[in-house]
Amino acid sequence: MDRRSIVPSLGRTETDRLTLGGVDVAYLAQKYGTPLYIMDEQVIRDTCAVFRNTLKKHYPGEFLVSFASKAFCCTRLYEILHEEGMGADVVSGGELFTALRADFPADKIDFHGNNKSEAEILMALEAGVRCLVVDNREELFTVARMAAEREEEVRIAIRVKPGLEAHTHEFIQTGQNDSKFGFGLESGEAMEALRAAVKLPFLRPVGIHCHIGSQIFEARAFVAAVEVMMGFLAQVRDALEITPEILNLGGGFGIKYTEEDTPRPLEEAVRLTAETVRRTAERLHLPLPFLQMEPGRVLVGPAGITVYTVGAVKEIPGARTYVMVDGGLSDNPRPALYGAKYTVVPVLNTGAPSEMTATVAGRFCESSDVVARDVRLPRLKRGDLLASLATGAYNYTMSSNYNRQPRPPIVMVRGGQDYLAVRRETYEDLSRHDLRGGKEQ
Amino acid sequence: MDRRSIVPSLGRTETDRLTLGGVDVAYLAQKYGTPLYIMDEQVIRDTCAVFRNTLKKHYPGEFLVSFASKAFCCTRLYEILHEEGMGADVVSGGELFTALRADFPADKIDFHGNNKSEAEILMALEAGVRCLVVDNREELFTVARMAAEREEEVRIAIRVKPGLEAHTHEFIQTGQNDSKFGFGLESGEAMEALRAAVKLPFLRPVGIHCHIGSQIFEARAFVAAVEVMMGFLAQVRDALEITPEILNLGGGFGIKYTEEDTPRPLEEAVRLTAETVRRTAERLHLPLPFLQMEPGRVLVGPAGITVYTVGAVKEIPGARTYVMVDGGLSDNPRPALYGAKYTVVPVLNTGAPSEMTATVAGRFCESSDVVARDVRLPRLKRGDLLASLATGAYNYTMSSNYNRQPRPPIVMVRGGQDYLAVRRETYEDLSRHDLRGGKEQ
Repeated sequence: MDRRSIVPSLGRTETDRLTLGGVDVAYLAQKYGTPLYIMDEQVIRDTCAVFRNTLKKHYPGEFLVSFASKAFCCTRLYEILHEEGMGADVVSGGELFTALRADFPADKIDFHGNNKSEAEILMALEAGVRCLVVDNREELFTVARMAAEREEEVRIAIRVKPGLEAHTHEFIQTGQNDSKFGFGLESGEAMEALRAAVKLPFLRPVGIHCHIGSQIFEARAFVAAVEVMMGFLAQVRDALEITPEILNLGGGFGIKYTEEDTPRPLEEAVRLTAETVRRTAERLHLPLPFLQMEPGRVLVGPAGITVYTVGAVKEIPGARTYVMVDGGLSDNPRPALYGAKYTVVPVLNTGAPSEMTATVAGRFCESSDVVARDVRLPRLKRGDLLASLATGAYNYTMSSNYNRQPRPPIVMVRGGQDYLAVRRETYEDLSRHDLRGGKEQ
Repeated sequence: MDRRSIVPSLGRTETDRLTLGGVDVAYLAQKYGTPLYIMDEQVIRDTCAVFRNTLKKHYPGEFLVSFASKAFCCTRLYEILHEEGMGADVVSGGELFTALRADFPADKIDFHGNNKSEAEILMALEAGVRCLVVDNREELFTVARMAAEREEEVRIAIRVKPGLEAHTHEFIQTGQNDSKFGFGLESGEAMEALRAAVKLPFLRPVGIHCHIGSQIFEARAFVAAVEVMMGFLAQVRDALEITPEILNLGGGFGIKYTEEDTPRPLEEAVRLTAETVRRTAERLHLPLPFLQMEPGRVLVGPAGITVYTVGAVKEIPGARTYVMVDGGLSDNPRPALYGAKYTVVPVLNTGAPSEMTATVAGRFCESSDVVARDVRLPRLKRGDLLASLATGAYNYTMSSNYNRQPRPPIVMVRGGQDYLAVRRETYEDLSRHDLRGGKEQ
């Protein structure tokens, strides 16, 4: 197995210890304790560069690559993204708050979400975000009313359901658009929303947005989405005599979690998408749109690993061997939520041959608490360290305090050094808001 | 639909507003904001009383009913439990910390878990917990070593896999015992563990423990577990010439989430279990064990509701109607994790006739973010309040900050009054541990 196809900056020392970005993982486990999230800043930066360079080379128009904060969100990350010239997509007041706390420029932040509160809309307007991506009619009129009250022009985009749904290897036309997100295209809702927006004072419809799925391995789905969305832009031009300048295609770029995953190279998906936008614009006599993409997982997933300590190994004759570690469901609920698969490797003797098939289970009182099912590992014992790979996306952001477990810290590595991006929670933290005595406040 | 069969203290005002424990739910939503967890202290106390009174009446031996903290954990709860004479089962340092913070007596706390760290074992020993429930061999020897180092006798129980697995309506014999929890019974591991424990200085094996499942509707499964476990106690007596005094049967008592759920009355399950212990003890010439039960869900689930505000209603012709609320996946991941079903009712005009079938979806950027699928509701609009019922168990404890969403507060009601048990998180809280600048600390 080529681990570097999963986490590109993995390596090993001469004494066969696992390294990430050149830093000894066991040393970090000792220094910060386990469970421990470790992320390689350089891998994030390198992936930002792939987007930037590919678009520079293959897209003659303007573009912005915006990180989808839902994949990973902490203050330090926004500093890195800003240095890389990235934008950010946020879906909540909390994500916006965090980005602003990092002095991330509001005019590079798009505010998404299928159900924004008025408090959040106000927060976004006051911050001066780049664009509010409007999801539904109620929201459209709420934003219009708030914009009018403030006597302030608000840039909006319309989230469109393009009638495509992309899966890992394929995409399907979904006639019925059975999704809570966005305005239907075939049903005419998207056009109606833009028609209303054009007439509403203080609303400036600057773009259209779609997001066709997650963990997409083939570029064809993106190409199909471009064709649908550009076709819609042409319809809008013909019907409303405006052409929103921004084409925001969302994210969905797939990554490799295990050997079974075979995503096409990121550069290829970005290039084919850009080329399709250009070609379609020519064909439809549209101006080149301001092209936006919103990758999340692909930017941070392969940058991260999670380190655990083995507590016990339980061989159940005729059934399976359980390797029980000190984290699990609370730091990574994806196996329980989606049956997501991960690759797990030993941290010391990291090149040792695999001798057993085991299920790496967590420490939580829940049968669904699994880190990885049926993975090949060397023999292990209490105290050994294991690393789960490509945990940089949707692990920390989906983490919980189930079983009153403090969340692990996030350590970042850069240039052979390590630093803390997020401190470990303490038991005190988890009770910080608890009140005693049952008295009215 | 009889809502009170789901949450017993629901009611309505003369103006048709929903009440919980006599308190106006819309008033609480206004006072504390939404999303909002509300729990009725009295419902928790009443269920404690059902256990206490049923066992007093039907079990001539000693007993302790211990709350399974994983279902719901906050400082205030332990104060209530202590006043009701309950014990507590904890599975982590965090749960133990919280109980101790409430001055809950350590000698009524059992420490469980399939992978306890040494720090947690030490914490439990220092606190003087009632019993360490040992899960596996590595743990047995770790506890023995630590007890020896401290020259202190430690009371332990052995977690046994009884080879039964209970589901809602049935139970099955599981020959292979494919579970990460506990020592196999048929394989002889449980007996071997007790044999080892008897010989280890400073370990005092005082009990055996099992837990056969969750959301069990029929008492037959508990009865079957009693028979297996009492049979094992007799084997232990014969083989090792000791009889551990505690029989801890864990939890699993089912509750009603929707009309489809038909759990038998709690009193019946407790009574039949107690009677089976008594009868089996007589038959096997065993002393009456100290009987322990560990209910979680049944004590807190029906005491709680979650209140949401509607943000938008999206009718998709030919597909479905989505009602989008301001919470969801982060405050209740159970629908996404297990396909769990909930009952949702309006808070104002709570008796209004249902006119539509809708999917109540949350505000999170995730298609799996559903509060309740295909429920009957009156027509709704932005700003309306909805309550999801029986959310008192495994909602707050499994909650996350996904999409950087602050967790809702927990308000308790008692005697027509309300008080805060847990304060709402703020955006600042979510960034409290974030560090800037990428510098080594």
